[in-house]
Amino acid sequence: MRTITIVTLMATGFCLAQEPGDFKPATSNVLDAQYPRVDGKSRVEIRFKAPDASKVRINFWSGPKADMDKQADGLWAFTTPPMAPGLHYYTVVVDGAEVSDPGSTAYFGGSKWASAVEVPEAATTYYLPQDVPHGQVREEWYHSKVTGTWRHALVYTPPAYDTQLKDRYPVLYLQHGGGEDESGWTRQGKANFILDNLIASAKAKPMIVVMANGYARRTGQSVPDLRGKPLGSPEMRQAMQDMMTAFEDDMTQALIPFIDSTFRTMANREHRAMAGLSMGGMQTFHVTFQHLDLFSYLGGFSGAANVFATGSDKLDPKTAFNGAMSDPAAFSKRVHLLWIGVGTNEPERMKQGIEKLHASLDEAKIRHVFYESPGTDHEWQTWRRDLLDFAPRLFQPTGQRAAARAK
Amino acid sequence: MRTITIVTLMATGFCLAQEPGDFKPATSNVLDAQYPRVDGKSRVEIRFKAPDASKVRINFWSGPKADMDKQADGLWAFTTPPMAPGLHYYTVVVDGAEVSDPGSTAYFGGSKWASAVEVPEAATTYYLPQDVPHGQVREEWYHSKVTGTWRHALVYTPPAYDTQLKDRYPVLYLQHGGGEDESGWTRQGKANFILDNLIASAKAKPMIVVMANGYARRTGQSVPDLRGKPLGSPEMRQAMQDMMTAFEDDMTQALIPFIDSTFRTMANREHRAMAGLSMGGMQTFHVTFQHLDLFSYLGGFSGAANVFATGSDKLDPKTAFNGAMSDPAAFSKRVHLLWIGVGTNEPERMKQGIEKLHASLDEAKIRHVFYESPGTDHEWQTWRRDLLDFAPRLFQPTGQRAAARAK
Repeated sequence: MRTITIVTLMATGFCLAQEPGDFKPATSNVLDAQYPRVDGKSRVEIRFKAPDASKVRINFWSGPKADMDKQADGLWAFTTPPMAPGLHYYTVVVDGAEVSDPGSTAYFGGSKWASAVEVPEAATTYYLPQDVPHGQVREEWYHSKVTGTWRHALVYTPPAYDTQLKDRYPVLYLQHGGGEDESGWTRQGKANFILDNLIASAKAKPMIVVMANGYARRTGQSVPDLRGKPLGSPEMRQAMQDMMTAFEDDMTQALIPFIDSTFRTMANREHRAMAGLSMGGMQTFHVTFQHLDLFSYLGGFSGAANVFATGSDKLDPKTAFNGAMSDPAAFSKRVHLLWIGVGTNEPERMKQGIEKLHASLDEAKIRHVFYESPGTDHEWQTWRRDLLDFAPRLFQPTGQRAAARAK
Repeated sequence: MRTITIVTLMATGFCLAQEPGDFKPATSNVLDAQYPRVDGKSRVEIRFKAPDASKVRINFWSGPKADMDKQADGLWAFTTPPMAPGLHYYTVVVDGAEVSDPGSTAYFGGSKWASAVEVPEAATTYYLPQDVPHGQVREEWYHSKVTGTWRHALVYTPPAYDTQLKDRYPVLYLQHGGGEDESGWTRQGKANFILDNLIASAKAKPMIVVMANGYARRTGQSVPDLRGKPLGSPEMRQAMQDMMTAFEDDMTQALIPFIDSTFRTMANREHRAMAGLSMGGMQTFHVTFQHLDLFSYLGGFSGAANVFATGSDKLDPKTAFNGAMSDPAAFSKRVHLLWIGVGTNEPERMKQGIEKLHASLDEAKIRHVFYESPGTDHEWQTWRRDLLDFAPRLFQPTGQRAAARAK
C-alpha cells in the first residue's frame, strides 16, 4: 500500500474535474483542490468530508457561523451570502472538534494553522503578483540574548537590492496581529506584492521590510500559569506587560542591530519606520514612543496605544508617553508620520477606540493621518489597504507624507 | 466579544502551565502548545479535543494507526510506542473526517497541510540551528512561459553570499516528494541548517540550493479528468508523463535561466547538481539524464529512475536513457556523482527497487554511491541523512566525492 502512495500523490490534482458554473476554486486553495470556491457574487461554497459526523458547523471568524448540510456522498455543504472582499479565516467544527479544512492553504492565525478563503476584490490588483520586478522575501534566523533563543524573521528586500550594490535602503518594521506570526504579512497580507507594485509605479520608495515574530519571553522566564485568571486580572496584565517589554528589548537590542549589520540599511531614525496590525499596532506604539531616537514614522492598523482605555486610562496626548506629544509642533517635526486606521465594519469597540484616538489627536492638534477602510472588518483586507496607504508616505519629503495616496 | 479576541490572543501561550514528568512539548508544536509531547524513550503523547465525537483515530502515516481514548475532559488521548527519530506526519480522524492537529505546526504533505511531530535523535545536531553563520532562505517568484503562471521557489544562499560579493557559487536543485511542495526541504527537512552546519565545518562547499515546486501544467492544459481511472491506466500514465515533461521544460527553460540571471551562480554543468526525494528523485533522473549538458551531479533519495519497474521495463544501464551509461568509463568521467539512497525501514517494494538499481549499476560497473539510512522509513529523517551524505560530495575534486562522509 505505502509504496503506491508516492505514485498516488504524483497524480494529485488530476482526479477531480472542474465543475461547470460561475463558482471557481479559491486562489487560497491547495494544489488543485476544488473547494472552497467563490462565485461572481462573492459567495463562498464549502464542502467538508466527514461521513460519520453527526454535526458539522462552519465557523467564519468574521462571517457566517452555521450548521452545514450533510450530502448523500458524506460531504457537508454550506454556501455563504455574498462576502466582503479579502481573505477570510474560518474553521470547521466536527462534533465539537474545531479543525481546519484540508482544501485550504494553512494560514497561521488564532494561534493555530487555520483555513481561509480569498474573495477577490473587483478591479483590484495592487496585492496580486504582476509583471513588474519582484523583491525577495528572506528567512532570517538571529540569536537573541534577550530571549536566549534563535528567532525567525522574514525580510523583504526590494527588487534592485542585489544589483544596485552601493544603494542603502530605509527600513519598515511591520508586525503581525495576536494569534498570528511573522508569516502573516506575506502569506495573508501579500505585503511583498503590495511593495513590488508600489515600487514599480514609483508610488513608494524602495525599502526593506522586516517582519518579526511578536512573541517574546526572556531567558529563564517560565510560562506563567494563568488558568482561571480573567482577562483584566493583575496576573494577565503582568503577563502581557512582560511579553511587551521582552519584545521591545528583543527588537531594539537584538533584531535591529542584526538587521543593520546584515542588510544595506540606512541605519538611523530618519529612515526607520514601524507599523503593525491589532496587537502589532499596540506593540508599535509601545516600542516607538519608548524609542523615538530609533523611529520617525509609525502606524497603527486597527490597533494603537490604549485604544480600549476608558476613564483615567484614556490616552491624553498632552501627558501620554511621558509627554512626547506635549508640544505638537515639536512632535510633528520629530515624528514625520503618525498614521492610524480602522475598517468601517470592525467591531464597535475597536472602531470607537481608534476614532477616539483620532479625535483626541485632532483636539490636541497632533498632525496625523486617519484612514478608514470602507466595508471591511478586523481582517486582512483592511490591513492590505492600510499598507497601500501607509507605505507611499514613508521616507518622503514632508508634503508627500500627507498627500500621498496610492489609489 | 470580538474586540476581546485581540487581547485574548495576546495572552496565548500563557494559559497552560507545563506539566511535570519526562514528556516535553515537541519542537514541532505551535507557540506554546503542550501537545503533542515526546518523552526520553521517544514515545509520543497526543491529545485532541473533540468533546462530541463518537470515534477519534490517530493516523501516523508511518507509525501507529489506532483508536484514541476519550478522557473525562472531552480530550482524546493516545501514546505511541517508542518511535524512530525524525519528523513523523500524522492526521487525526474525527468521525470519518481526516484533519490536522491544531497543536502541531502545519507541514505541507499528502497534498494538504498536515500535522507532524519531531522526535529528537540522540546526540545529533547536524539539522538543528547552531551558533554558526546562517545562510538565508529566499522566496522567489518567477514567471514561466511553460506554465503561463507565476511560480514560487525557495533559494538557500550560503552565509557569505551577501558579503563576498565577487564570489560565484555552484547550485544544487533539490526537489520535494509527491504530495509535498517547495517548502518541504526547509520546513520538514531543515536543509538550510544542514547546509549551514556542513559549510561552517568546511565539510561541504558553500553552495546555492534551489527548491522549486515540482508540479507543473502547460499553459492552456486543462486538469485531466481521471475519476475512475486506475493507477496503471494509460490515462494516468499520460497525466504523469505530461506533468513530468512540463516540469522538465519549466526547470530548464524558465527556472534555471531565472536563477542564473538572479544569483551569482557558476552557470555551467560542472557546477550544477540535482537531487530529489521520492517523486523528486524520479524527476531528478528524468531531467538530468535528458540534460547531461546541464548537470554533472545527481542524487535520488528514496526515488530514482524506474525503481518500480519490472520485467522488460526494468532499467538496463546499457540501454537506459538512450545509452547515456553504455560506456561506464565515459559516463563516470562526465557524471561526477551518481548517488542513490534508501532507508532500511522503507516499504519492501521501495527498498528492493533502489537495491536492484544499485545491483544493476554495480553489475554494469557504473560508479555510484549507495547509501542506506539505518532504521528509518520513507520519511524525512532518511532524507536529512541523505542530504548530509550527499552535499559534502558535491563540487569537490574526484577523490573526495567518493570519500566524503559528513559523520
